Amino acid sequence: MSEADFIARLRGIATDPAARGLADDAAVLGDLVLTHDMIVEGVHFLPDDTPQDVAWKLVAVNMSDLAAKGAEPIGVLVGYSLGDDAWNAAFADGLDLALRRFGALLIGGDTVRVPDGAPRSFGLTAIGRAPDGGVPSRGGMRPGDQLWVTGTIGNAGLGLAMRLGQLAANETCLAAYGRPQPQLTFGRAVAPHVHAMMDISDGLLIDARRMADASGCQVAVMLEAMPLSAALLAVRPDVLDTRIAAATAGDDYQLLFAAGAEAAPEIRAIASALDVAVTPVGHAVVGEGIVLTHHAQRIVPPERLGFTH
Amino acid sequence: MSEADFIARLRGIATDPAARGLADDAAVLGDLVLTHDMIVEGVHFLPDDTPQDVAWKLVAVNMSDLAAKGAEPIGVLVGYSLGDDAWNAAFADGLDLALRRFGALLIGGDTVRVPDGAPRSFGLTAIGRAPDGGVPSRGGMRPGDQLWVTGTIGNAGLGLAMRLGQLAANETCLAAYGRPQPQLTFGRAVAPHVHAMMDISDGLLIDARRMADASGCQVAVMLEAMPLSAALLAVRPDVLDTRIAAATAGDDYQLLFAAGAEAAPEIRAIASALDVAVTPVGHAVVGEGIVLTHHAQRIVPPERLGFTH
Repeated sequence: MSEADFIARLRGIATDPAARGLADDAAVLGDLVLTHDMIVEGVHFLPDDTPQDVAWKLVAVNMSDLAAKGAEPIGVLVGYSLGDDAWNAAFADGLDLALRRFGALLIGGDTVRVPDGAPRSFGLTAIGRAPDGGVPSRGGMRPGDQLWVTGTIGNAGLGLAMRLGQLAANETCLAAYGRPQPQLTFGRAVAPHVHAMMDISDGLLIDARRMADASGCQVAVMLEAMPLSAALLAVRPDVLDTRIAAATAGDDYQLLFAAGAEAAPEIRAIASALDVAVTPVGHAVVGEGIVLTHHAQRIVPPERLGFTH
Repeated sequence: MSEADFIARLRGIATDPAARGLADDAAVLGDLVLTHDMIVEGVHFLPDDTPQDVAWKLVAVNMSDLAAKGAEPIGVLVGYSLGDDAWNAAFADGLDLALRRFGALLIGGDTVRVPDGAPRSFGLTAIGRAPDGGVPSRGGMRPGDQLWVTGTIGNAGLGLAMRLGQLAANETCLAAYGRPQPQLTFGRAVAPHVHAMMDISDGLLIDARRMADASGCQVAVMLEAMPLSAALLAVRPDVLDTRIAAATAGDDYQLLFAAGAEAAPEIRAIASALDVAVTPVGHAVVGEGIVLTHHAQRIVPPERLGFTH
């Protein structure tokens, strides 16, 4: 049973509405939103990432799922694989810092020891309070909707390349990789105005494609509209390859959302009040899959739309 | 930072009442009970355990924590490390079976790939509905209370030895190791009548000691009273060493609870109605730690009271 078949099988088990068909970022149980993400050494983080950064990432990736559902963090349960004494101490510092930053309480979890030398896995379950007006799903995008992103895209991917020594480092990109900032406040504020929302964890293109698939429509992305940071443009020219790389790199933890054109003024007002950049990068049409353009030129989508595992 | 220091540090972070000082089997959030346990290949299960048994164990260990809090299962989020195709398919079967058996819904989770050849970790967060009369903690045992256990003790430990080929196999012990049966129905029924309750996951002695520590009193365990199964006594003589081995073996997932002597008739009536064996195995006194006797002879507690990790 391939991974796709496995997940399809799980969807067959997860028939309760709370599960949202396992096709969303989070489950919705009454007025609670619950999400669980794992990170694995050598897959989701580097063996020499600092323990503080690993703790931050573990919390942040789950907080980003809550942000995408407009939820307010309540608490977390942590599954922790013990390291050496210094690692444990530094991880605890990072966990404390991240939980304070995002306003989430540590309420439980488990501590295990993995066999010597084995890569370690960490899990975190985050529980949040659902927004009053209902929890936006991935699947609510409608033909005619505008597709928006928060912040800038591609910094974290460059940050990873810098961490791997493939590129001269700059602080903005390294921080985007090491300390992603989930858009909790904006997500909560914008939730009543969107038709669909999710976070960009695996890459703008793959996540936009997932939103299109869940919504039963086609999404058209204008690559030239995708917001790139000054830090990224300082090391990369603004050409198509740069934009494709940024759009498929993952780890940005910005929000991707679809809303009717009539909501645009309110969305811009919320973003402005919260000092969050928002940019329309495309729109939804009848059809399926993803269509890319670059300055009105049709672009064949790359085979790899983003990160899978 | 040693593991004990690490957990102490986490307790310093987990100051919210919902966390119960990280000293309980589960967190309590409003009318929900939440627990998260991880299991690691080569530590909590054998690399050649069947995927169905691994799935069952992952669900059952968490259901046992809900049972100990008198909670009714609602749903689970699963953190899954992908295996090969046959393993994934068999795990999905086992997960489906276990969730149906315990009345829990699959509502979410995450799927990851670990590096080739690395031991795999699985996490599960279980959410349950708290019992109406309040959630029993580990820390409510009072001097004078009777200490009770459900079922029999030591079958799973022998089952593990059988799985490892150290002993001729019998089905009862193998099943106790491979397919533990959390006492959900009994736990829910008895919760209003207990002062403290927890599940026996790491061994009767270590878990009784933890209850005593959390309650600020001493627990006295009469080893001769500890219920052993016919299957165990068929392969082991009823001598002190057998009883110490059973009491320190872990994986039984029976319930350990403390209640006032006046509750005994009601506890026996509930157990009888549900066809669950219950046995008083000791009592609580003023003091600290654990005291063991065998036919009124004081026994020095073994250095290793049970399984840690």
